[in-house]
Amino acid sequence: MITLASDFGSPYPAAMKGVILSRTDAQLVDISHDLPRQDPRAAGFWLRETVPYFPPAVHLAVVDPGVGTNRRAIAIRVGNHALVGPDNGLLRPVVRRVVERHDTEPSISAYEIIVDNPASTTFHGRDLFAPAAAAIHKVGVSRIETVEMLSPISVESCVDLRFPEPTVEGRTVHGEVLVVDDFGNVITNVPGDVVAGIERATVDDKSVPVVETFAAVSPGDRLLTVGSHGYVECDVNQGRGDERFGLGVGDPVRIAVDGPSDPPTLG
Amino acid sequence: MITLASDFGSPYPAAMKGVILSRTDAQLVDISHDLPRQDPRAAGFWLRETVPYFPPAVHLAVVDPGVGTNRRAIAIRVGNHALVGPDNGLLRPVVRRVVERHDTEPSISAYEIIVDNPASTTFHGRDLFAPAAAAIHKVGVSRIETVEMLSPISVESCVDLRFPEPTVEGRTVHGEVLVVDDFGNVITNVPGDVVAGIERATVDDKSVPVVETFAAVSPGDRLLTVGSHGYVECDVNQGRGDERFGLGVGDPVRIAVDGPSDPPTLG
Amino acid sequence: MITLASDFGSPYPAAMKGVILSRTDAQLVDISHDLPRQDPRAAGFWLRETVPYFPPAVHLAVVDPGVGTNRRAIAIRVGNHALVGPDNGLLRPVVRRVVERHDTEPSISAYEIIVDNPASTTFHGRDLFAPAAAAIHKVGVSRIETVEMLSPISVESCVDLRFPEPTVEGRTVHGEVLVVDDFGNVITNVPGDVVAGIERATVDDKSVPVVETFAAVSPGDRLLTVGSHGYVECDVNQGRGDERFGLGVGDPVRIAVDGPSDPPTLG
Repeated sequence: MITLASDFGSPYPAAMKGVILSRTDAQLVDISHDLPRQDPRAAGFWLRETVPYFPPAVHLAVVDPGVGTNRRAIAIRVGNHALVGPDNGLLRPVVRRVVERHDTEPSISAYEIIVDNPASTTFHGRDLFAPAAAAIHKVGVSRIETVEMLSPISVESCVDLRFPEPTVEGRTVHGEVLVVDDFGNVITNVPGDVVAGIERATVDDKSVPVVETFAAVSPGDRLLTVGSHGYVECDVNQGRGDERFGLGVGDPVRIAVDGPSDPPTLG
Repeated sequence: MITLASDFGSPYPAAMKGVILSRTDAQLVDISHDLPRQDPRAAGFWLRETVPYFPPAVHLAVVDPGVGTNRRAIAIRVGNHALVGPDNGLLRPVVRRVVERHDTEPSISAYEIIVDNPASTTFHGRDLFAPAAAAIHKVGVSRIETVEMLSPISVESCVDLRFPEPTVEGRTVHGEVLVVDDFGNVITNVPGDVVAGIERATVDDKSVPVVETFAAVSPGDRLLTVGSHGYVECDVNQGRGDERFGLGVGDPVRIAVDGPSDPPTLG
Repeated sequence: MITLASDFGSPYPAAMKGVILSRTDAQLVDISHDLPRQDPRAAGFWLRETVPYFPPAVHLAVVDPGVGTNRRAIAIRVGNHALVGPDNGLLRPVVRRVVERHDTEPSISAYEIIVDNPASTTFHGRDLFAPAAAAIHKVGVSRIETVEMLSPISVESCVDLRFPEPTVEGRTVHGEVLVVDDFGNVITNVPGDVVAGIERATVDDKSVPVVETFAAVSPGDRLLTVGSHGYVECDVNQGRGDERFGLGVGDPVRIAVDGPSDPPTLG
């Protein structure tokens, strides 16, 4: 199985699929080709929240504003998964999440993808990453080191990407918006624990109920909830949280825990 | 085979696919993940117009504004098809259509999906419906009653959803817009028979030609036609009917049959 | 394998997939269902840039403003590929490209698809092209002439579609915009050779650097580059070229080669 993810929209992913299927008969599964455009951090979040649910596979992921520059192209093996993409941090959060989900520490190894004179300088998805993913699939992830176009490097040498951590000041958590989903739900970096057991919180200057389901408030009303990824979300029932809260990716967000509960703590 | 349909956009469907493929090696086919958002009636229309074309399969469909509330999660078997989704009416139109397409009455049975403490209260697609679809696929639709997480219920107890019926007054049919498609074509609930054999009709206050093909009128011009689902559509050749007719989902629409033909009748 | 391409958006392609999978167990791969709407020329460009990367397969492609009129429905076999779609020129560029990629001239044959009374006059993708693609897949491309619904015609009788050719006047190339991609990159019909080895060019009245990678200029800055299809593109690093250059599909574009280099030549 090879999964595919990119910020390419349509129809560029088809060229990658054609290249892969010309070289190996893998089952192809799309993760998304509408990842946040040119934004490895937000795209890395979504990869971390989707890829680890898959059985062992080769995962091709391309969000690559530096395509054609001297940024490296890499493959990382973690357990029986192999990740293929640009060395801009995109792959690191999913690697960490796959490690966390293993009972025992999985083996990790990293490789630079070497392709002399790829056919283009702007479409490495087609000319470099797809051939690499196909080559790894062909020999099997467990024999990744036998793939000719891969040259071993240290995992530590790969660009890292970490999401910002929130901070606490009294009853207020200072967080940041990590991503906004297609529904307009605003996903912050504030852990769900911060709002556990409380009924209301103040987001920036708005007092908002903390609920478990969207339908707990009237259509069009604001709410805070702990999303399926475990973070506090600023949402609207049957509406767009980003518009009503005036929040977008990267924006700071202050969440104050009201009432008689203990002040919030992190971790 | 498991088909997937939702209003999730991207990339949430990927988590459902990962969950399924971790449990069973089904062929996955996307119906759509851009079903009308939070609108089980309009989404139920599209499921009815697409799912029955498939060979026997498990069909996962999630448009679920009540996620996390006490609305039930259900599976319905009809013949060799199994439908999995929320108990909000979404699945009922496709069940009826599958029955209509059978020569002999197929067997129908319904089940509540029981999952103790799903991992989230907001993403039952991943945490409840996908595991149920995978479990049904694994044993086979014909043995659905052996799936442990399913508890028999009566089909009659499931929430029903019926599309509104048009009414006739003299030469005028009072209908309603069921859905608007991606082209902007306005699909009403008025049966195509109403305009059979006539050359013009009046939609609200506009006289419009009734034609068999878009190209029968000039680009940019309005037309009425009987769409591929058998209903009267208000369209524009190479343009958007919704904008030119000023019509959206749920709007009333009056279609008056002009000229010397017999007054319209329904059914 | 059957690939699918259309301008249908969602969810109409699902009905085509259901029809195909009810008749044959082909692996389905989506090329795109967001091809430029109702624009066979621009859609034909994208088919040419994606389909030839695939291994031998049946390729279903529907961008069909004349659906239901007397335009023919056709299938073209080229080597071990079969293309199925409307006879409006859409399929011809990809046929030519597949021929170019063969070492020896592949055999080509063409057929009209004959379906008496298709179920609709507006959705031939479901009622005519999908059944034809399934039928060809079932017997195999090499035995396409045995498919009952196909009647031989001459390839020359099929509507052709050629992209406009640029012209040269002194140091200026007069080209045209072929397509704009999802990133807003403006893809012209000017061959990449025209800007080979030069550092700047003038697009309409704007002097722009000619670079190999987007990242060679600052985010938000304009650039010219040779895209992955070999043509000159008018782009913006991490922005939309169509908006900054004020260019859309079909617009004329003047590219003047600055400096001491030889005047541009074509071909």
